[in-house]
Amino acid sequence: MAQQGIAVIGAGMIGGAHAAAYRQFAHRLGGAVLHSVCDMNPAQARDLAEKYGFQRVTDDWRQVIADPEIHILSVCLPNFLHTEVTLAALAAGKHVLCEKPLALSADQARPVRDAADKAACVSGTVFNYRRIPALAEIRSRMDAGDLGRPVQISVLFQCDYAADPMLPHSWRYEFDRAGPGALLDLGTHAVDMLRFMFGDVAEVVGAVSTISIPARHLPMGAVTGHGHVALSDQTAVVDNDDVMSGLVRFANGAQGFVSASRVAVGAGNRLAVELHGTKGTARFSTETPSFYELALFAPGQPSNFTRYPNRPSSPAVGALAPVPHDLVSVGYAEVFGYMIHDFLAAIAAGRALENGSIEDGYRAAQVLDAIQRASVVNAPVPVAWQD
Amino acid sequence: MAQQGIAVIGAGMIGGAHAAAYRQFAHRLGGAVLHSVCDMNPAQARDLAEKYGFQRVTDDWRQVIADPEIHILSVCLPNFLHTEVTLAALAAGKHVLCEKPLALSADQARPVRDAADKAACVSGTVFNYRRIPALAEIRSRMDAGDLGRPVQISVLFQCDYAADPMLPHSWRYEFDRAGPGALLDLGTHAVDMLRFMFGDVAEVVGAVSTISIPARHLPMGAVTGHGHVALSDQTAVVDNDDVMSGLVRFANGAQGFVSASRVAVGAGNRLAVELHGTKGTARFSTETPSFYELALFAPGQPSNFTRYPNRPSSPAVGALAPVPHDLVSVGYAEVFGYMIHDFLAAIAAGRALENGSIEDGYRAAQVLDAIQRASVVNAPVPVAWQD
Amino acid sequence: MAQQGIAVIGAGMIGGAHAAAYRQFAHRLGGAVLHSVCDMNPAQARDLAEKYGFQRVTDDWRQVIADPEIHILSVCLPNFLHTEVTLAALAAGKHVLCEKPLALSADQARPVRDAADKAACVSGTVFNYRRIPALAEIRSRMDAGDLGRPVQISVLFQCDYAADPMLPHSWRYEFDRAGPGALLDLGTHAVDMLRFMFGDVAEVVGAVSTISIPARHLPMGAVTGHGHVALSDQTAVVDNDDVMSGLVRFANGAQGFVSASRVAVGAGNRLAVELHGTKGTARFSTETPSFYELALFAPGQPSNFTRYPNRPSSPAVGALAPVPHDLVSVGYAEVFGYMIHDFLAAIAAGRALENGSIEDGYRAAQVLDAIQRASVVNAPVPVAWQD
Amino acid sequence: MAQQGIAVIGAGMIGGAHAAAYRQFAHRLGGAVLHSVCDMNPAQARDLAEKYGFQRVTDDWRQVIADPEIHILSVCLPNFLHTEVTLAALAAGKHVLCEKPLALSADQARPVRDAADKAACVSGTVFNYRRIPALAEIRSRMDAGDLGRPVQISVLFQCDYAADPMLPHSWRYEFDRAGPGALLDLGTHAVDMLRFMFGDVAEVVGAVSTISIPARHLPMGAVTGHGHVALSDQTAVVDNDDVMSGLVRFANGAQGFVSASRVAVGAGNRLAVELHGTKGTARFSTETPSFYELALFAPGQPSNFTRYPNRPSSPAVGALAPVPHDLVSVGYAEVFGYMIHDFLAAIAAGRALENGSIEDGYRAAQVLDAIQRASVVNAPVPVAWQD
Repeated sequence: MAQQGIAVIGAGMIGGAHAAAYRQFAHRLGGAVLHSVCDMNPAQARDLAEKYGFQRVTDDWRQVIADPEIHILSVCLPNFLHTEVTLAALAAGKHVLCEKPLALSADQARPVRDAADKAACVSGTVFNYRRIPALAEIRSRMDAGDLGRPVQISVLFQCDYAADPMLPHSWRYEFDRAGPGALLDLGTHAVDMLRFMFGDVAEVVGAVSTISIPARHLPMGAVTGHGHVALSDQTAVVDNDDVMSGLVRFANGAQGFVSASRVAVGAGNRLAVELHGTKGTARFSTETPSFYELALFAPGQPSNFTRYPNRPSSPAVGALAPVPHDLVSVGYAEVFGYMIHDFLAAIAAGRALENGSIEDGYRAAQVLDAIQRASVVNAPVPVAWQD
Repeated sequence: MAQQGIAVIGAGMIGGAHAAAYRQFAHRLGGAVLHSVCDMNPAQARDLAEKYGFQRVTDDWRQVIADPEIHILSVCLPNFLHTEVTLAALAAGKHVLCEKPLALSADQARPVRDAADKAACVSGTVFNYRRIPALAEIRSRMDAGDLGRPVQISVLFQCDYAADPMLPHSWRYEFDRAGPGALLDLGTHAVDMLRFMFGDVAEVVGAVSTISIPARHLPMGAVTGHGHVALSDQTAVVDNDDVMSGLVRFANGAQGFVSASRVAVGAGNRLAVELHGTKGTARFSTETPSFYELALFAPGQPSNFTRYPNRPSSPAVGALAPVPHDLVSVGYAEVFGYMIHDFLAAIAAGRALENGSIEDGYRAAQVLDAIQRASVVNAPVPVAWQD
Repeated sequence: MAQQGIAVIGAGMIGGAHAAAYRQFAHRLGGAVLHSVCDMNPAQARDLAEKYGFQRVTDDWRQVIADPEIHILSVCLPNFLHTEVTLAALAAGKHVLCEKPLALSADQARPVRDAADKAACVSGTVFNYRRIPALAEIRSRMDAGDLGRPVQISVLFQCDYAADPMLPHSWRYEFDRAGPGALLDLGTHAVDMLRFMFGDVAEVVGAVSTISIPARHLPMGAVTGHGHVALSDQTAVVDNDDVMSGLVRFANGAQGFVSASRVAVGAGNRLAVELHGTKGTARFSTETPSFYELALFAPGQPSNFTRYPNRPSSPAVGALAPVPHDLVSVGYAEVFGYMIHDFLAAIAAGRALENGSIEDGYRAAQVLDAIQRASVVNAPVPVAWQD
Repeated sequence: MAQQGIAVIGAGMIGGAHAAAYRQFAHRLGGAVLHSVCDMNPAQARDLAEKYGFQRVTDDWRQVIADPEIHILSVCLPNFLHTEVTLAALAAGKHVLCEKPLALSADQARPVRDAADKAACVSGTVFNYRRIPALAEIRSRMDAGDLGRPVQISVLFQCDYAADPMLPHSWRYEFDRAGPGALLDLGTHAVDMLRFMFGDVAEVVGAVSTISIPARHLPMGAVTGHGHVALSDQTAVVDNDDVMSGLVRFANGAQGFVSASRVAVGAGNRLAVELHGTKGTARFSTETPSFYELALFAPGQPSNFTRYPNRPSSPAVGALAPVPHDLVSVGYAEVFGYMIHDFLAAIAAGRALENGSIEDGYRAAQVLDAIQRASVVNAPVPVAWQD
């Protein structure tokens, strides 16, 4: 295979995760080249390129897509640009990995799904939490029937980046500009985890949105990122969710709870999963990333929780961790790398990336839409999960 | 005050908790007398009486209520008898503490509430989890505003007593005879905890019932308790919930999630509470009963979780634990005793028992009804929390 | 059996633990009577008597021992009085339970051991931590061989009652008056736990004493308890250990580490045990009192830690806890009660109390002496564990 | 600066950690080149080279050292070769990072220390655990005085790679060939952690060696690695430590406990650190790598443990983690990379690598020697920590 060029479009924080992972694995793809970093802000593009050893920078994503030396793309732009760029990449025959959320709505995501279906290239949505070895192993156990039939699942994604009431108002607090708040920004990961573990969601039975800080001060100047700036006396209304929770029914009859919060004091960036099958219960939290807990039913025996730490036999660990000992810690960036590795491996093998596909991105968008809508109409909303 | 006679009606497992607690504290009430244990099964009554030092036994609860030497009663009978006996006790002017659930429905509970309102005696519903020092302290902090305004709460009550599919069918799996399953049996504690922490529930936004073991074998003989017996080939349908979850909106605008399961493998008997206010997050689980975790917001500071262990200053600990050192463990039976102590103290002081009142029992029934109904009609159900 | 009178000598905090436990179980001993509380401070005696329902108070322990109505005694006096009162009680034929440490040295303890050996009455040393269900179950598993042969054990007893450098100087910080500091006060429990789990200690290989706060301010007035008082400008030297650790070799060849601290910031009152056998590892801490963790070796299998929570089948739980469900929490006072129960049961049965005997108190004193001496001579010190 | 060539000598598991880390950071050093992997086993060298993108392979470490294109070396050979190769590298003016232990004894390590002192190049010993953000932050807090003066520290390094008695005998179980067992193999990390946190060790007060599996079956064929092979009927004696523990006194007067085990069932690869200062206690375990716990003394306040998770402000995290959010997990390989980064940064800056120096390797060897000797002579052994 000829050397393939790799580009990262969008040089923000998550662009760094992609770039670092490509650096780690690109050479395994027949010597793929770390070709370009693209960002409207050239200094930021340059910084990222230097940090991870990419050869060039540009400020125009169309140029990247038009470049015949570039074959592999990560789309790490602001959410509202995901579909446009991903569609363009697919149209140009590039292998493309799009950051979550794939789109702002299922309607917007559907054409991407359709395009990906028809395209010859490899495509995917970034659902990196699927590659956490503990969660991947729980999923394997579900598939193997160790936990029996699915009964109940709870997935929480809790952050506190908006917990401070003195953070300035910005576009992210306006529904018209950002769409849902915590739901879209964080809930995407949580909803994907529901589907990863229990399959398709048939109905959102109910949902509640809470806005805990109903107004925020306008800043004196422009706002970028999440940090503090000088505030004016004027406030503006927050009209999208600080916390959104939904109760769901799966296609297989199980029940689920999903909750996303951007104001959960102390949470850091916490994903917590608890799932119950007829034969077992599994628990995991990113607070303790090196193991999950599992209790299995055995007739006539007490069922106790056992810690299952990372091991050489854990998904990805033996193959991809440099020193895969028992209880080895595997970090966020490494897990991100596992996803990039799988993307590159799919390209090398000429097959689809099935774990975290564009289809998965679309299905998540359907559920997110239904949660949002259920919270507005205060009634159950079905999910057209077979469309 | 003249010596008062104490009786425990119902000599099952929970009757033992009452009896043990009366033994511990009765003498502080001007030398109250451990008068009687009552149970249809005289041997069981006698066992309990001997174990905890009660003077007499009887098999007729009406006799107990008629006995002028008895002034204080605990109602520890099967759920369907709670209202009848409690109403009779109130009518006879007895101080009465009724096991949860107060009734099988809010309609059934309302006359008890009305009778308690008018009665001169002290009355209460057993909501013993309110006395866990860690939970009581979280509640105090809520009241003091340490956590800011209520935003979100989650309360889980998970057991696995029905996880084994080879346990025989019985009345408890039939809606007609038992009413809701996990919801009524376990959810009562969880719903009360919602109210204890965040106040009245205004609406059940949605609820889902799951029956994970849809049929069970009929036993060859009679069934008592939860144990194994010889099974016949015939099975019967289970038609009440193994797992029930509800999403709620509080009168104060906060949101809540509540879930009860009788098939949660490995759970033992687990109550887990997580609550978020605008200024803090608190977490507690009965797996680690000696502390709770709290993260408080402080401007410009990272918010970290701190463990708050039991201390002499913890609610009830300094006053009631014999050796109230830092990190002292306080057991289920001791916490139960704290409730009995408060009941006796209210009697001694001639004032109402406000923390775990009959009114609280009624309000819990309203929410339980709404959850059950929401799960059936698949639509939001309001709660008449001001009636 | 005729009604037996029970007396608690010493109405301090730990006297309360005895009194509460006698209240709980005395009636099971053929209606034993809660006879007397004895303390030099009559008000304190009266308070305790009222709190737990004892009939009389006295300020003279000799009178208690001379009283023919009293048959059962707990010695809860300051450490330096333990041997004198216990010897007197044994001489008078009383059943006697002596608080730890049995004596200030092995030399002082030996006559008590010899007297107990000859006496017809039941006697014991208070080693209440042996009754924590999790620790009792680990011990049972050791006995059953589940963990294989003993290899290594570590026992920590950490408190922070002396962590504050502004607490006044007192007798407890002087070797001449108090003997060892943390070692004697807290290390007794830790050393007994070594022996409970792994048997007799043959040699203290090395020991280190640290005095982290080498001088403390003298108080303006008298000092009782651990609290703050007005301090003078003058300071006095602290010359006994704030922290003492010892490395030991057991008679069976295993190794052990034991450490006691009174200045461990944040520790509360923490006992932590970790033990390794050839076939398994067990861990327990009083921070999480409801379970222990155990990893067992299985050929060709990964060895994982499993949580074993309290259950009806746990030692003492099924028999003595009023509501023995899975994961039931059992508090400090309840565990203390289990010991009192066993003491009363031994009296009722006319057999020796073997679990926490006077012999155990003597053996602990031998090891404590050897640790203290090793820390002074900076050399190994053998333990005459077969004498 | 001209492009510098990097070589990894030794293509075993730990060689992979070096190679992966060089891949991650080499380009930041003015485009340093991943030049060679060297191993006696050419296939293994080739595998590693391909996996991490090194250009060449060789089977002769002397050739690597003689190669003028190679400027930077990692020594990842079996322990007994460390000093020879490191001395040769220093003599040739190469920057060299030597795996732990630096040598089999302090006598053997001293010439390396002396050579490194005189050399113009950058050198270091691999003490990667120092770069775990939580441990690095505890150390910073020690330095800043947050925890007051050092009082007590405990460091455990527990593995179970030799827990299975049916693993074959090999050189590693013979003192003559391997030197100490768990002590040398695992205790090096633990001893370095003692010094990292509390400074130099003045004396080993006592030490105990335990051989829990005193004989092992000889294999039918050759043994490589830790795995199972066919066993013969014959057994051979194990004569070095399965578990070694030492009690130490630091130059600053604090006390310490260190323990290394290769037979700790369930431990995986666990480093646990607990340290006490006059003003605070800190705890960390690699079981929960994303945070440490800290309790600080505050006058008149209860001291509680707070979890401090990884944050952008944690050592190395903000600068080196691609996505440094609150609670970000950082894996073993990333932490290893932090060390390589610091090594390369020291080379780039032309300054010494102070955190994990050759001197640190020598000092650790002194302490290890003293522990080993104390266990043999059963007496305290001083450490010449100022030589």
